[in-house]
Amino acid sequence: MNLESVKKYLEKRQGDTSSLVDELPPRFLEPLVLNALRVDLVEPGRVLCSMKIPPRLLNSGNSLHGGATATMVDVVGSAAIPTLGHMSGRTGVSVEINVTYLDAAYADEEIEIEAKTLRVGKAVAVVSVEFRKKKTGKIFAQGRHTKYLPAISKM
Amino acid sequence: MNLESVKKYLEKRQGDTSSLVDELPPRFLEPLVLNALRVDLVEPGRVLCSMKIPPRLLNSGNSLHGGATATMVDVVGSAAIPTLGHMSGRTGVSVEINVTYLDAAYADEEIEIEAKTLRVGKAVAVVSVEFRKKKTGKIFAQGRHTKYLPAISKM
Amino acid sequence: MNLESVKKYLEKRQGDTSSLVDELPPRFLEPLVLNALRVDLVEPGRVLCSMKIPPRLLNSGNSLHGGATATMVDVVGSAAIPTLGHMSGRTGVSVEINVTYLDAAYADEEIEIEAKTLRVGKAVAVVSVEFRKKKTGKIFAQGRHTKYLPAISKM
Amino acid sequence: MNLESVKKYLEKRQGDTSSLVDELPPRFLEPLVLNALRVDLVEPGRVLCSMKIPPRLLNSGNSLHGGATATMVDVVGSAAIPTLGHMSGRTGVSVEINVTYLDAAYADEEIEIEAKTLRVGKAVAVVSVEFRKKKTGKIFAQGRHTKYLPAISKM
Repeated sequence: MNLESVKKYLEKRQGDTSSLVDELPPRFLEPLVLNALRVDLVEPGRVLCSMKIPPRLLNSGNSLHGGATATMVDVVGSAAIPTLGHMSGRTGVSVEINVTYLDAAYADEEIEIEAKTLRVGKAVAVVSVEFRKKKTGKIFAQGRHTKYLPAISKM
Repeated sequence: MNLESVKKYLEKRQGDTSSLVDELPPRFLEPLVLNALRVDLVEPGRVLCSMKIPPRLLNSGNSLHGGATATMVDVVGSAAIPTLGHMSGRTGVSVEINVTYLDAAYADEEIEIEAKTLRVGKAVAVVSVEFRKKKTGKIFAQGRHTKYLPAISKM
Repeated sequence: MNLESVKKYLEKRQGDTSSLVDELPPRFLEPLVLNALRVDLVEPGRVLCSMKIPPRLLNSGNSLHGGATATMVDVVGSAAIPTLGHMSGRTGVSVEINVTYLDAAYADEEIEIEAKTLRVGKAVAVVSVEFRKKKTGKIFAQGRHTKYLPAISKM
Repeated sequence: MNLESVKKYLEKRQGDTSSLVDELPPRFLEPLVLNALRVDLVEPGRVLCSMKIPPRLLNSGNSLHGGATATMVDVVGSAAIPTLGHMSGRTGVSVEINVTYLDAAYADEEIEIEAKTLRVGKAVAVVSVEFRKKKTGKIFAQGRHTKYLPAISKM
């Protein structure tokens, strides 16, 4: 692959959706990823969601985009933090996100996303987020989200 | 925060953009994130891009969404692999993505995204991706993308 | 702290154990870390070990050294791979290790180390390794080890 | 490999060094790893060290043990934090360590270890640690160490 092709590889990704994209409202990444998400269970330290993978979240290989998985590690992981109750809804600031991709998941597959808090301390929270295929129970991705919880200033 | 609020926290993210989202074309995450990307330089082992952060990529705190950053680690990191030439354009399969978030970046800020290959071997490629603010040169996020490069079957 | 103190900070670590260290046999890191390890259970996809934390593995703050934890993610994680049987004992080559530290563990505490395979494919294996305090069951560290499994050449 | 062999795989690692190991002094991991380390340069935000890989730090494949690399990411990374001066020597508490292994390094190879602060904030510090072969300049491992810096209590 020559260098010019790499440039095109990145630019072609925009296809002719360019004018559509430019008109989208602010903060559109979360609705794009989360619109298909169902919240099945919320309990202290745990959030369980499910999703039928929508075609809009696929990559060019037609499997769930790694960036969509990472966005869910971010958002669903964040949602697990205030389930422990003592923080008046603060979800903090991301420090680190990591994701291991174990297998591909395809359009219309039913998946489960489970976020579990590993620690919610005074200043640091860590949440593990697991992605499973509903049909087989097989884990296809696992991530971890570490957040810093700034102190609430007391007035 | 009670558990019901956590459910709403995840569901409200969809706001009233629901019908708009449902009509989007397949493979829409990449155009959404990359439409604002300019490819400034491609050379062996290195891809340098820039972007004026568009409002659509913000999170609810009005800074660049961690999922958008992770998506760029995925895609711009992948683009750096074939710059080393010996792979006829294959970019492989994601094994691991990690991102460290060092600072917030805001709408209309000019940023630079630099992907550098750390290793492109026969079977495994690792790319480092750094995000800097153009004005100050300050790194605000750093990620790493590890991919597996399946062998090309010989006929 | 001035720069000279940082130099001393790194050098003092060697204390007056210098001559003792220089006489140690090759490949000594594993015996140092693993000598206290008991293997409690080995089954397909899972290895469970326990350890009473020995003083030699503490850091200067007198809790289990982060490097000792990482070494166990490496070695106990590797041991879980051949439990799935189809690899004639190969444990592969490390690609990535990550560890999240959730809490400190102290000398003489009884801990449990559990390695579970997330995936053992033809070329890539991923193992999750969890560290728990026996008394409370609380997770105090969680790591992931990704390995590349080179093909066995057929003669 | 049957399950019994996996048990032996972990237990044989202790070889017949068992009695030697049991007599070692407390906090011995750092001297073991760092005794070979030379501190070449300390400046604000950066620590540069070098090492001739000693046989005691090898793994069973006779290359530098992944646990030794991770221990250096921990300790050399920590040493870079107070070079920025405003913390009276605090190096904080480890939150996350990750290491990517790019190539093997062997006994008696001369290597360079460079720690660079990516951020030292009020509460969170992130340091990148790079391992290079001196002869070729080639990076053979890259890690990141994230620490939480607890506030100093004011009396």
